[in-house]
Amino acid sequence: MKVFDEIESEVQSYARAFPRVFNKAQGEHLYDEDGTQYLDFLAGAGTLNYGHNNPVFKEALLEYIQQDGITHGLDLHTKAKREFLETFYEKILKPRNLNYVMQFTGPTGTNAVEAALKIARKYKGRENIISFTNGFHGCSMGALAATGNSHHRGAAGVSMSGISRMPYDGYLGDDIDTTAYLDKVLSDSSSGIDHPAAVLVETVQGEGGINAASAEWLRNLQAVCRKHDVLLIVDDIQAGCGRTGSYFSFEEAGIEPDIITLSKSLSGYGLPFAVVLMRPELDQWKPGEHNGTFRGNNLAFVTAKAAIDHYWSDDKFAKDVLRKGDYIEQRLEKIVEKYGDGNMTTRGRGMFRGLNCVSGDLAGQITREAFKHGLVIETSGADDHVVKTLCPLTISDENLTRALDIVEAAVEKVLKGTEVPEEHDFFAEEPADSSEPKPELAGAA
Amino acid sequence: MKVFDEIESEVQSYARAFPRVFNKAQGEHLYDEDGTQYLDFLAGAGTLNYGHNNPVFKEALLEYIQQDGITHGLDLHTKAKREFLETFYEKILKPRNLNYVMQFTGPTGTNAVEAALKIARKYKGRENIISFTNGFHGCSMGALAATGNSHHRGAAGVSMSGISRMPYDGYLGDDIDTTAYLDKVLSDSSSGIDHPAAVLVETVQGEGGINAASAEWLRNLQAVCRKHDVLLIVDDIQAGCGRTGSYFSFEEAGIEPDIITLSKSLSGYGLPFAVVLMRPELDQWKPGEHNGTFRGNNLAFVTAKAAIDHYWSDDKFAKDVLRKGDYIEQRLEKIVEKYGDGNMTTRGRGMFRGLNCVSGDLAGQITREAFKHGLVIETSGADDHVVKTLCPLTISDENLTRALDIVEAAVEKVLKGTEVPEEHDFFAEEPADSSEPKPELAGAA
Amino acid sequence: MKVFDEIESEVQSYARAFPRVFNKAQGEHLYDEDGTQYLDFLAGAGTLNYGHNNPVFKEALLEYIQQDGITHGLDLHTKAKREFLETFYEKILKPRNLNYVMQFTGPTGTNAVEAALKIARKYKGRENIISFTNGFHGCSMGALAATGNSHHRGAAGVSMSGISRMPYDGYLGDDIDTTAYLDKVLSDSSSGIDHPAAVLVETVQGEGGINAASAEWLRNLQAVCRKHDVLLIVDDIQAGCGRTGSYFSFEEAGIEPDIITLSKSLSGYGLPFAVVLMRPELDQWKPGEHNGTFRGNNLAFVTAKAAIDHYWSDDKFAKDVLRKGDYIEQRLEKIVEKYGDGNMTTRGRGMFRGLNCVSGDLAGQITREAFKHGLVIETSGADDHVVKTLCPLTISDENLTRALDIVEAAVEKVLKGTEVPEEHDFFAEEPADSSEPKPELAGAA
Amino acid sequence: MKVFDEIESEVQSYARAFPRVFNKAQGEHLYDEDGTQYLDFLAGAGTLNYGHNNPVFKEALLEYIQQDGITHGLDLHTKAKREFLETFYEKILKPRNLNYVMQFTGPTGTNAVEAALKIARKYKGRENIISFTNGFHGCSMGALAATGNSHHRGAAGVSMSGISRMPYDGYLGDDIDTTAYLDKVLSDSSSGIDHPAAVLVETVQGEGGINAASAEWLRNLQAVCRKHDVLLIVDDIQAGCGRTGSYFSFEEAGIEPDIITLSKSLSGYGLPFAVVLMRPELDQWKPGEHNGTFRGNNLAFVTAKAAIDHYWSDDKFAKDVLRKGDYIEQRLEKIVEKYGDGNMTTRGRGMFRGLNCVSGDLAGQITREAFKHGLVIETSGADDHVVKTLCPLTISDENLTRALDIVEAAVEKVLKGTEVPEEHDFFAEEPADSSEPKPELAGAA
Repeated sequence: MKVFDEIESEVQSYARAFPRVFNKAQGEHLYDEDGTQYLDFLAGAGTLNYGHNNPVFKEALLEYIQQDGITHGLDLHTKAKREFLETFYEKILKPRNLNYVMQFTGPTGTNAVEAALKIARKYKGRENIISFTNGFHGCSMGALAATGNSHHRGAAGVSMSGISRMPYDGYLGDDIDTTAYLDKVLSDSSSGIDHPAAVLVETVQGEGGINAASAEWLRNLQAVCRKHDVLLIVDDIQAGCGRTGSYFSFEEAGIEPDIITLSKSLSGYGLPFAVVLMRPELDQWKPGEHNGTFRGNNLAFVTAKAAIDHYWSDDKFAKDVLRKGDYIEQRLEKIVEKYGDGNMTTRGRGMFRGLNCVSGDLAGQITREAFKHGLVIETSGADDHVVKTLCPLTISDENLTRALDIVEAAVEKVLKGTEVPEEHDFFAEEPADSSEPKPELAGAA
Repeated sequence: MKVFDEIESEVQSYARAFPRVFNKAQGEHLYDEDGTQYLDFLAGAGTLNYGHNNPVFKEALLEYIQQDGITHGLDLHTKAKREFLETFYEKILKPRNLNYVMQFTGPTGTNAVEAALKIARKYKGRENIISFTNGFHGCSMGALAATGNSHHRGAAGVSMSGISRMPYDGYLGDDIDTTAYLDKVLSDSSSGIDHPAAVLVETVQGEGGINAASAEWLRNLQAVCRKHDVLLIVDDIQAGCGRTGSYFSFEEAGIEPDIITLSKSLSGYGLPFAVVLMRPELDQWKPGEHNGTFRGNNLAFVTAKAAIDHYWSDDKFAKDVLRKGDYIEQRLEKIVEKYGDGNMTTRGRGMFRGLNCVSGDLAGQITREAFKHGLVIETSGADDHVVKTLCPLTISDENLTRALDIVEAAVEKVLKGTEVPEEHDFFAEEPADSSEPKPELAGAA
Repeated sequence: MKVFDEIESEVQSYARAFPRVFNKAQGEHLYDEDGTQYLDFLAGAGTLNYGHNNPVFKEALLEYIQQDGITHGLDLHTKAKREFLETFYEKILKPRNLNYVMQFTGPTGTNAVEAALKIARKYKGRENIISFTNGFHGCSMGALAATGNSHHRGAAGVSMSGISRMPYDGYLGDDIDTTAYLDKVLSDSSSGIDHPAAVLVETVQGEGGINAASAEWLRNLQAVCRKHDVLLIVDDIQAGCGRTGSYFSFEEAGIEPDIITLSKSLSGYGLPFAVVLMRPELDQWKPGEHNGTFRGNNLAFVTAKAAIDHYWSDDKFAKDVLRKGDYIEQRLEKIVEKYGDGNMTTRGRGMFRGLNCVSGDLAGQITREAFKHGLVIETSGADDHVVKTLCPLTISDENLTRALDIVEAAVEKVLKGTEVPEEHDFFAEEPADSSEPKPELAGAA
Repeated sequence: MKVFDEIESEVQSYARAFPRVFNKAQGEHLYDEDGTQYLDFLAGAGTLNYGHNNPVFKEALLEYIQQDGITHGLDLHTKAKREFLETFYEKILKPRNLNYVMQFTGPTGTNAVEAALKIARKYKGRENIISFTNGFHGCSMGALAATGNSHHRGAAGVSMSGISRMPYDGYLGDDIDTTAYLDKVLSDSSSGIDHPAAVLVETVQGEGGINAASAEWLRNLQAVCRKHDVLLIVDDIQAGCGRTGSYFSFEEAGIEPDIITLSKSLSGYGLPFAVVLMRPELDQWKPGEHNGTFRGNNLAFVTAKAAIDHYWSDDKFAKDVLRKGDYIEQRLEKIVEKYGDGNMTTRGRGMFRGLNCVSGDLAGQITREAFKHGLVIETSGADDHVVKTLCPLTISDENLTRALDIVEAAVEKVLKGTEVPEEHDFFAEEPADSSEPKPELAGAA
């Protein structure tokens, strides 16, 4: 570990919570150098929806590299890019009746958000962008301006302008539809909220604490945008690519954003990759106006195509995500009932779920306890108070059950002080103290 | 090609200049779908210093993937990261007596620049950063503020603050040391240039037109920085990793920047990767304060380590770069003499060279002509007036000669109207009209 | 009028609504070149609380000028300044138990707001300032950032940063205390609202449409500020100096702002003058750090002292303002009842009142009609939909009655189409159609 | 003095250097409460070009107030405004063949600069403004961004954007025409200096240290502006109204700015007043778009008209200013020769002159010494190193001579340690130690 302490920057974060040297990974499992196996409920913070090193894509990737396929080609046309574009069109856009062009930005989410904000501002000739309380969109300066987190914002070191903040769904209480407030400030020429080019929103705020907007709120948001001639940008970097059960997270709401950002699980294999989808008329870019050396990662084209072909040619995968998501929800609800003492709540939708422990201290104790028992799991939210169950969507029912058993036992231990037997092996059997029957995980259809 | 026209954004740039669908690449060669071979003098805009799909790294990469090595691990410690850090320390930092810690940022140059600016501002508690005329540092908002190019700046759509612009070496004429001007404004409390946190500089401005700062100017710049308690950041994203003949481009000048950004050829294999090196005392990051999903690309660790081991364990490679660089310089000088009519000049150092055609129109004709004869070559500079010879450093002598023959023939054709025979095959023989002996390429030592 | 059309800028505003050349003014009366008399219900947009050319101050002013008292002295100590400071301390601050130091800024409201924001940011070392929907604080760039009006904001031509906008009292409906929302975003580290240096608020928003915050809301606002270590700045430029019945408009609420801005009626005589009051510990200015050539207008010191001596040595004036304010309120309520059709409402407190006509078009018709009958009266609000009754506080009961008669007749004409006889003289008798008794104006105590 | 210490803000500046309580002023004389007379070489920092309480304007002012002329009328048309506009047109614009419309801004210089920058940005649809090293344009946020002084800039507390800084005439040495550098960056699309809306310049930088641009440099600057379709704004707030010998300071250079700001001595009487002059086609303001309560100070209209009528109906006054300016120059040159030791230099033109003492400490000693002998005189420049001789233009020859005698004696004392006899009365006789003949002041024509 010495080299990490001595040469790697203090900016390390996850490495502090899980102080092991990892070496191998497969599906929902991580392995450290000593061969110890861990269940991964962090999953690259939503990047590994299809698990680590998914064998389906691995084959395609190895073959492509073996054959000296283009690895780096700037934005040159390549066969790999064409095939990805065709597949994305045929399997994702066309069946959903969506009409977008695709921009390959620098291969990280924040680069895609930067591009989305630029094209929105350029197209509308306006500077202001609406973003929301607890939103997270990245750490480069343009995206950071839209991000709510003060920990990240505080590092900017320079004024960030061009963003107005609005309350997210539920922020003012359950009875208040915050899109009405947005409608009011946009209708009021003295509101001080300059006419925006766009609204930038996550359908489920991951870093913000697994806050899921309701379908109705999203529809109202779209209606307000259209009423005021404002573009709607859905940042689907974390919620997209199947995490909520559909390919795009906004499908359930039936909205059609003007611009969409995708990254994280887009490549399927954890390879850096990011795109912006935009309605064709918005595509007013001049050649190379927004560029970047690694835009259009060809290895990612290969695995992304394989991922779409394999998982999104029919609705089986989507249904399975919903099935498992329901199970997670039931298990978390059970935990809330048993240990929550009226304080805890569950959050999220699909397999984008969390356990709101209210206290960050408590949530931290729970994740640390879980890690002792082989579960890599993290928190999010303003106070790190939400335990996130962000496992690969491809996790086996057995492992999903086991992992949630660990979570439950960790909660119990932390809240009730119940000792978890040192030798207890969560990977082999049911938690010993689980007297009540736990929710059953319905078999896949 | 239809899918590119229909679905890919208009932001495409290189794809317009080289309208082929590429499929394979090896070393200095690109191949399109029809199997046509091209010599690559663009080299991923400086990303492919070791050529396409370098077989040495390819082996390591395939093996790592085969064995299910961690592909995506956020910033978790991994064996691949440790080995990269150790190799970088042993082969790069230690022999040069350099003492830096390394931050893995989002895997693109602009992400590294964003992090460098943030840490400089944070450390010094000042907002202003000095950057230079014709500098290029990226297109995300923080880096874009420091970038000079109006084409890119114009897309910002929002005020960019926190940067003061200074004239680069030679900008005010050869007789004027522009660091004296910098010294003056920093000494003058009414200059209107706020006390900066840092100076951000490229030793050779690639996108700016292959403008190479003199070693003396760089030393003076460092002296001015130290006199005024200002950090010196060298953006070595394009000039570093051997392009100028040494690993870092500033070694010749004997300076020691406080912060260095690296990306592009760092991974060796064209994989997205970027780091910030900083003096240990600058490393005041709080955990996760600047983050990003794809920071610390494990596949890139593997190939980057292999690249350093193979090319930087001794000085053979560096010397070879200088040898070839000299040859390029001689060939370009010859072209200038024969066709330049007193207008053209050569630019750059090492294998970071260019032919300043003064006119962007002319330079464009030359590169288009060269492409007809199988050479992928691009321009840079404010008016796209500089033809860049940015080939892989690993190019064979034979191919280097051939490529420069094509350049020369293209220049001749464009400037003299000499018809280049349609069937002429530059790949097989000397240009027919080359009556004068061309400079010889000294054999490798 | 030709010279105004030819040489004066198109930026003219009030001159368009009242196209006369005015020449003389006394008390609540304006006179044009032809000697026509007008009742002034605009009163310098709140600058003439004591009427035009108040004879009490006029005497003092003439004598001072006659004796070659210092007219312009930068910020030198002068006898006039000392006497003003002493009077302000003895008659205003001391009786109210207020402890402030006074800064003389450039002599306009916007200059005072600029200074207030600077000192707040400097003292707290934070950039963000909270300002409110429909707030108006001036048109220089620092103050404009805090101003809500898009007409003014749109002229900035550059990004304005450092302000977060919050909903004013009542903006989200009568049931919602918007200070709770402010409390929430300040408590939430991911709200995206950076920890502010200060909250900048008007107790009654004049330009915003005579929106009066409740005393309770102001107290809650102060409580939220104190809870979160945020300064409270009351911009009392329009609402202060007696307009609401007390010298400071916040006295009724019983709060103690950290910083107060005053201007408009401060000099009493319509002379340019502005100050910032701040708690002594906030006064961290370095000498001359915020300056301006006309700071500390000595002629204004003379009239301001006279105004305070004459009107604020006891509570008679304040009580009279409340008495007249009540009368205005009753008259406006009557109008609302008779003509409002359930849509109109009244706004404001003290003599800072308005008639909300909902429609800007309607309000404009009413003021134009009133002007035909000798009443200079204007609108405010986002849609210019509120008719403002902003007369001198010193207006005679008789003239106040007459002016409101004109307003009522104008409303009736506009809404009911009732023809107002051309010759009808509102200055001489009751409106002919006023069958119902109008509210009586109680005699002064 | 207690009240100033206790209640007035620490922001006081001049009051610190001249710790007296002033009471009366006439012409070039200030009087404190004890009746002590001082010669005023500060003159309201350029506001009192016609001396204190000039009797010609005083008469007009008293009469206007006596007759209840409009004091405060927002931007309503008034007779006083018309007469001022007509006089300004007839006596100033027409004889100089200048075609401008006039905007009345808030009555301080910084308000006029804010308006000038706004209209330039609005008209050109560009954000960037070029301003110069050592420029001073005011302390409200828009103007402050253009101001060079770090003392003032440091108080902003928020990023100031939209300004690019260029070196003023002479800043890079006498041999370098810095307009060539400006031309280069505007011609270079990668210079990083965004195409500006305007260049904002003082012909003589007052606060910056009495730096006078050459007529040729100003002409070159205008040529560069026209070449690049950039507006030229001359900030003539301090240098205008006769200070350099002509009404506008740029007349000598024969240029025609697109926009001009005037304030300070415009009213003649030290009353707050400021205007923007702009070419008619630039006047794209919407009604009230840039406003302010005290715009169009009617008392100032009266005295400004009187000042123009009296001093600018012929060229007598202008010539007298040049005559006295020459004398000041000669006296300062003599001082430089005798005491300067090769370091001191003189600065400026007309009666806008200064003695560059290089050291701020030295300059401060000189002004303090001069004050002991009855001369109110200040320094300017980045290090307060320039002693400014900014007396009223109307000063008598006798008093001008005496004041410069005091300056010379103060310089001698500070530099040579020569004791100045305590009782020496500079107001009565020649300095006793003035053995060398001093330059003679030629009699007025």
